Amino acid sequence: MRLVIDQADLHAALQVAIRGVATRSTLPVLSGILLVAEPEQLRLVATDMELTVEALAPARVQEEGAVVLPGRHLAEIVRRLPPGEVHLELEGLRARLIQERSQFTIHGTDPGIFPAVPRVGAGTTVLFDNGALRGLLRRTTFAVATDDSRPILTGVSFRAQGDRLEAVATDGFRIAACRMTLERPVEGGAAAAVIPGRSLAEVARLLPDEGIGRMLLDETQAGFQLGEVRLITRLLDGAYPDVLGLVPSEYPTRVRLPARAFQEACERAALLSDSRQAARWVIRLSVEPGRLVITASDPEVGEAREEIPAEVDGEGMVIGFNARYLMDGLKAIEAEEVLFELTEPLKASRLRGVGEDEFVYIVLPVKIS
Amino acid sequence: MRLVIDQADLHAALQVAIRGVATRSTLPVLSGILLVAEPEQLRLVATDMELTVEALAPARVQEEGAVVLPGRHLAEIVRRLPPGEVHLELEGLRARLIQERSQFTIHGTDPGIFPAVPRVGAGTTVLFDNGALRGLLRRTTFAVATDDSRPILTGVSFRAQGDRLEAVATDGFRIAACRMTLERPVEGGAAAAVIPGRSLAEVARLLPDEGIGRMLLDETQAGFQLGEVRLITRLLDGAYPDVLGLVPSEYPTRVRLPARAFQEACERAALLSDSRQAARWVIRLSVEPGRLVITASDPEVGEAREEIPAEVDGEGMVIGFNARYLMDGLKAIEAEEVLFELTEPLKASRLRGVGEDEFVYIVLPVKIS
Repeated sequence: MRLVIDQADLHAALQVAIRGVATRSTLPVLSGILLVAEPEQLRLVATDMELTVEALAPARVQEEGAVVLPGRHLAEIVRRLPPGEVHLELEGLRARLIQERSQFTIHGTDPGIFPAVPRVGAGTTVLFDNGALRGLLRRTTFAVATDDSRPILTGVSFRAQGDRLEAVATDGFRIAACRMTLERPVEGGAAAAVIPGRSLAEVARLLPDEGIGRMLLDETQAGFQLGEVRLITRLLDGAYPDVLGLVPSEYPTRVRLPARAFQEACERAALLSDSRQAARWVIRLSVEPGRLVITASDPEVGEAREEIPAEVDGEGMVIGFNARYLMDGLKAIEAEEVLFELTEPLKASRLRGVGEDEFVYIVLPVKIS
Repeated sequence: MRLVIDQADLHAALQVAIRGVATRSTLPVLSGILLVAEPEQLRLVATDMELTVEALAPARVQEEGAVVLPGRHLAEIVRRLPPGEVHLELEGLRARLIQERSQFTIHGTDPGIFPAVPRVGAGTTVLFDNGALRGLLRRTTFAVATDDSRPILTGVSFRAQGDRLEAVATDGFRIAACRMTLERPVEGGAAAAVIPGRSLAEVARLLPDEGIGRMLLDETQAGFQLGEVRLITRLLDGAYPDVLGLVPSEYPTRVRLPARAFQEACERAALLSDSRQAARWVIRLSVEPGRLVITASDPEVGEAREEIPAEVDGEGMVIGFNARYLMDGLKAIEAEEVLFELTEPLKASRLRGVGEDEFVYIVLPVKIS
């Protein structure tokens, strides 16, 4: 391997690849980044065996070749080099990185022991607007389970059919469901897949602001092509529960109120929720004619009372919520007004933006005395 | 107590006062902020018994009074209130905070049990330019000891005499010494004081960008008047060692080189310092005719070699340093060129900016094999 590459290009590609490097692995080679010098480009690959990230950088390649170099060290060195041309060459498994008066020798590892880059097989192809996918991910991934008691819930369930992509996430306490229209009908038939939340966080981070991206799905993997970056992730095994089928379909009490005022009132009231209780951030909502009243009380600190004018339809009630869950849902709503729909104090409620059909948020209440 | 205050004014004063609130204290009242309604203003005081912070906010006071309210809760609530007028009133020890449709009741504590605000007695008065003091603090406080094995070294030693203020800090491995010219000769006679590094970090944070500030010193305390904010800190007890008297006065080897290139080369080389050694960040400097060569080697990762063209005067040598200590000193130098002066491989070296007489940095070498 012998090549010349611009410091800025190498730095950018390393910043992408480093996202795939295993942070805790018993396999030392996974802390490395595979560098492959190909005609006109350097290909960088990193994986933790669940997620694989591949980035490309333009390079003047004089001699092809491959090596695995320690990921963090390489990224930190290149980040600190001044702008300009960097020379990279391999002697056996020792890489030499030279820029003007700086010279680094880095011990590499045989690329033969690096895991093969997974290829997504024949399956479904989904074309999406990058900005639209970013919105869909922002509005769902936050709701995945963070503990492993039901592993399937640590992913987002996707369903692609015709020109629609639907995503559902839940941790058992709330459900975020969002859908978007695709650039083109799905090729290769409808598909369903549960993609790990952590992989989707990297997809969201690496999504370009504009343009069209592509997702390939087979039985066990999903591949995302985002500009010059490719991510391949394992799918979660097992059937995703039909969580939307379990929630009420009728919500006789409907409250229409300004979204930001509702969100900010929850935030303030939560500051005085009872910090001694096991159920944290509990606030009390009282649906009354013409208004929603939010109260909270921490015996050691004091009480909060917030009032928001609202259009109320149906019977009033008093109902408790974890304020964090309400706030998460309200943040995901982009409309100025929100429709807050309730059934009874111990059943799920629903949040939607007025005129925002693509997103729905279901949240379970908390029992209050 | 009954008053009306602008949310922005109350928020700004709370953000200052919160810096003085004790984070770990066995005295519950110290987690509170003392609020005193005085004619035309609200005074806020917080203390951890070492540092006391006092802030003022303009207010329409209808009834004077005082109370201690839980600091973090109050600051968090006010931070989240929308702009506009806030009404604050006291009923017994319960404070009511009202803004439009938001209403908070906060349990207060008797102001009688809050520690008396310390007053700095007759002593020395020092007038300084705020920007100049900020520079002096930036160039010294980083070098204080962070462990308590010699408590006096956790402070910065100040000496005010005539129109000069001198500051020295050391942790036993390096010394940062800086001086500045005062706006006016010291009033009340020369003075020396060792001020805790943590208090100085708060002074630096609260220093206005411009204007003249005032420091009062007595035997046990220092008081800083910074705009509408006052800080009073206890001094550290004991004699500060004459550390500058212990370092070489002659440096036969003199190396003149660009400051930023030197700093960046140290940063890069440090990435390949031997991570298995107890002495961390060790790099090797070789003073040669016309250049400084920096090398480092981590047997598990690789080697770095950096070369910087330099004007070298005197004998060459090979000397080891903790790269972090060199970088700290180089960051504190503002000049484009630095004078790096050495005696021999196991004695202290000196760093100064060319033409920058006010700052000097002494650093002990590390033994290398």
